[in-house]
Amino acid sequence: MATTIRDVAKEAGVSAATVSRVLNNSGYAHEDTRKAVLDAIQKLNYRPNEVARSLYKQKSKLIGLILPDITNPFFPALARGVEDYLREHGYRLIIGNSDEQLEQEIDYLDTFAQHNVVGIVASINEPHSDMLSDLNVPIVLLDRTVEELPAVYADQFEGGRLAAEKMLERGSKEITIIRGPIEVRPVYQRFVSSFQVLRQAGVKVHVFDSKLSFEGASKSASSLFEFYPNTDGILACNDIVAVAMMNEAQRTGRKVPEDVQIIGFDDISISELVYPGLSTIRQPAYEMGEKAAEILLKKINQQVLDDLHCQLPVQFIERQSTRKVGE
Amino acid sequence: MATTIRDVAKEAGVSAATVSRVLNNSGYAHEDTRKAVLDAIQKLNYRPNEVARSLYKQKSKLIGLILPDITNPFFPALARGVEDYLREHGYRLIIGNSDEQLEQEIDYLDTFAQHNVVGIVASINEPHSDMLSDLNVPIVLLDRTVEELPAVYADQFEGGRLAAEKMLERGSKEITIIRGPIEVRPVYQRFVSSFQVLRQAGVKVHVFDSKLSFEGASKSASSLFEFYPNTDGILACNDIVAVAMMNEAQRTGRKVPEDVQIIGFDDISISELVYPGLSTIRQPAYEMGEKAAEILLKKINQQVLDDLHCQLPVQFIERQSTRKVGE
Repeated sequence: MATTIRDVAKEAGVSAATVSRVLNNSGYAHEDTRKAVLDAIQKLNYRPNEVARSLYKQKSKLIGLILPDITNPFFPALARGVEDYLREHGYRLIIGNSDEQLEQEIDYLDTFAQHNVVGIVASINEPHSDMLSDLNVPIVLLDRTVEELPAVYADQFEGGRLAAEKMLERGSKEITIIRGPIEVRPVYQRFVSSFQVLRQAGVKVHVFDSKLSFEGASKSASSLFEFYPNTDGILACNDIVAVAMMNEAQRTGRKVPEDVQIIGFDDISISELVYPGLSTIRQPAYEMGEKAAEILLKKINQQVLDDLHCQLPVQFIERQSTRKVGE
Repeated sequence: MATTIRDVAKEAGVSAATVSRVLNNSGYAHEDTRKAVLDAIQKLNYRPNEVARSLYKQKSKLIGLILPDITNPFFPALARGVEDYLREHGYRLIIGNSDEQLEQEIDYLDTFAQHNVVGIVASINEPHSDMLSDLNVPIVLLDRTVEELPAVYADQFEGGRLAAEKMLERGSKEITIIRGPIEVRPVYQRFVSSFQVLRQAGVKVHVFDSKLSFEGASKSASSLFEFYPNTDGILACNDIVAVAMMNEAQRTGRKVPEDVQIIGFDDISISELVYPGLSTIRQPAYEMGEKAAEILLKKINQQVLDDLHCQLPVQFIERQSTRKVGE
């Protein structure tokens, strides 16, 4: 059994409230009482509980981060951005993995709030405004948006547009868009944007569904070319899916980029390391994390935000899974 | 400002201790008092603080997990194993990223202990027994060991041996071992074991250093073949490094596996998705996480552990970055 403030109070022969006063240097405590409390603390190896103190002082330095899937490298990269910025400013980060499940998102919001975090960064799918405003803790959304809350995200429409245009410029004529789950808003936005550009260009377009995870990507990749064997260009909903599709293309005897060009989304670390290197739309994950942390600290310190929403730019990273223009 | 127990007490015209008694259903409180407190709680939208209550009740359901690097997919896989097991048993997991830095490891141990976690799973490099026994919170090490603490890990010596033998069986004669940082014990163990097997076999062996991260791997890969151009087999310290080396081999015009065979370590999700698929030594990351969680809950519930240390088996996963035996 861990030592509690009550054990200390009993050992020192005083009330728990007195122990608390001594710990917090608040209110009056006689020097003898003070000594008795400190002796008891030392004897029992009691660690003055930061949480209990923050109940009174509101000075916990803990921030909670909710991510949808830590096994997708995009999110650890976001997390590193959040963490590095917070650490520099004397805060610590704890992370919860929601698995894109509403119930788990609520669970973590609640856990964080109950355990005295002073702020929350959340990449959650269905922010329920009611619940969020109930939290009594500043929150910043990351890679997700809701009108009335601060949010940091990359320009998904521009990303979707860029991917489609780069593919068209490089000569693909029968393009399959791998659409992720439509309930993940940024993923849906990039899909819609790509789709519009391709339709306007008059090329043949297929839509093929995949989950965003390694397992899901692998599974859907295995049947892509059965459905659409003449695909000569693939726009994938994220880099994991793109790598899975690239693997499948090569496995079925297609050359990348000669027979099939592939463009991913995110620019996770692995995209540079696979062979051929994956051309992709880069979201500045680390910078997004930093920015979200910066905005959160502003909110915690009750500073005025210039803008509620902060949209960061995306860019096309050209590697070897696409041909050079004009080739 | 968040509502505190003091605000509730003031609103209800009672002491904070009385509010606490009502919240915890402990000790006597007159029905009128009880009603006044509950009304105040409702009026102020006060969320009874789970942490403060757990100070008295010792019933927080929060577990802390310390990982060395969440951007290496091996660790999120471990985390998922821990998390899924805990969730099934009504516990929640929060994660801290230590970046393999001792200072940050201590920081998180402290943060978790102070914020009333009931147990800790830690993948930390230099467990200081003093500090760990001071914690007053059950701890299980994961992918790391210390004699006197419960630990779950995979059989690194067997893994190193297997990698070397499989490489030899498949005919490589000039083998470069990519050794990770020697202070990361499991990584060092697999290196030593591979090295011994190769030396005994009398083949030519080089040792080449790399960090374990994406960036580090990419950087060291770029000079591997300048140092050892005749390398025809690579044993990499983890899969990230293996993928980086495979990329470099192909970039410099070498065919995998015809000219250079490559074996990784870990079997992260990406290893199956790259082309050619990466042959590797599989550590059962998810199962390791589950097992650590299981042992931790036993400790929390003061059950007797059969064994302090739990070693899980590794296995060779044969994909396309190695030749078939006899080819």
